Amino acid sequence: MTDLSQTDRTRLRRTHERGAFDRATIDAILDVQPMCHVGYVMDGKPVVTPTFQWREGDHVYWHGSSASRGLRASKGAEVCLTVTILDGFVMARSGMHHSANFRSVMLFGQAFVVPDAQKEAKLSAFIDGLWPGRSAMLRPNSAQELKATTVLGMEIAEGSAKIRSGGPVDDDEDYALPIWAGVIPVRSLTDAPLPDPRNLPGVEMPDHIRSFRQDDQAR
Amino acid sequence: MTDLSQTDRTRLRRTHERGAFDRATIDAILDVQPMCHVGYVMDGKPVVTPTFQWREGDHVYWHGSSASRGLRASKGAEVCLTVTILDGFVMARSGMHHSANFRSVMLFGQAFVVPDAQKEAKLSAFIDGLWPGRSAMLRPNSAQELKATTVLGMEIAEGSAKIRSGGPVDDDEDYALPIWAGVIPVRSLTDAPLPDPRNLPGVEMPDHIRSFRQDDQAR
Repeated sequence: MTDLSQTDRTRLRRTHERGAFDRATIDAILDVQPMCHVGYVMDGKPVVTPTFQWREGDHVYWHGSSASRGLRASKGAEVCLTVTILDGFVMARSGMHHSANFRSVMLFGQAFVVPDAQKEAKLSAFIDGLWPGRSAMLRPNSAQELKATTVLGMEIAEGSAKIRSGGPVDDDEDYALPIWAGVIPVRSLTDAPLPDPRNLPGVEMPDHIRSFRQDDQAR
Repeated sequence: MTDLSQTDRTRLRRTHERGAFDRATIDAILDVQPMCHVGYVMDGKPVVTPTFQWREGDHVYWHGSSASRGLRASKGAEVCLTVTILDGFVMARSGMHHSANFRSVMLFGQAFVVPDAQKEAKLSAFIDGLWPGRSAMLRPNSAQELKATTVLGMEIAEGSAKIRSGGPVDDDEDYALPIWAGVIPVRSLTDAPLPDPRNLPGVEMPDHIRSFRQDDQAR
């Protein structure tokens, strides 16, 4: 696991956010928030698609329908995969210094197609990464389903994390103003699972469902 | 307020998600979730930047440092602005039918620079849209601060919303399997505001802070 080198497109120009290139910081963000936005170029124009990502070692993966124009346009192409966790609104004494607390990762690279022989293992790793042991409990994938699914991957090689935390940072003279400043924390919350009304009698909620928390904190 | 026409890049190819082109659906998603991801092309490659958006009538806006390479690359250029609200994980009886409940909007268009004379009003609208009345309570923007800030806008003219809700939809024969299926709902939650320790004595928390909820539901 090698930390990432700064490149022209990942070097931070401004200092009000903290950039990080170490894999521990980057991986922690990738591992806690599956939702990501993948950007690619289609007909010369940018497209940003929300999807789920998962990490295995030095790669991130995402998947979708083999018929998806976006996935097809991403194969072997340059993509940017961004994961963002919003942690709070930073309320300052001037509009200028309002900000957000957040953790984000931006990864750049070429997307590759995961070979057919590895597809099933990758998809199981995705499910089991969120819900340990679930893939083995499911009805197995059919050959047709696997064919209809494309898994893309990208090496974690170029990119960076950005983190802002803490309270507002105002201009020195503004601290004398009678203006309420502070932070409004936000986080994501998991509510009680809703069983499908068509679950068979006696089928109990598995531990991997009961204990799942999408809480934006370490799982 | 005109509903959006389908175009080649917004027409839905597959039917498992519900696409919408009506402005009421699109606006409701834009108005409830300020966080967005803006995609643009820099040196021929896609970049996806998390930022906040706000809507005024038929336009969405976002802003940042005038020194930002991303904002500079977006001026007058094609961008894709995507807002995504994750509502839940859909747990099916096969891996294939696992899904997510979500609401998203994808907008395409050319970003334009908001003229200097309108910049302050736009930034105030952004702040007051989230925290009604706040901009008037703040230390006014300086000319230098306004100059250091770029506000970009885009017409809501091409794009679509996508929504998935409800429980898993499994293959008919899979309902006979003793597998737990259902939905794990997730939502974002606002915690109690944290006052800045440097707030002056007697400065009370304004209503716009006390009543703020980033709850992904209608505000």
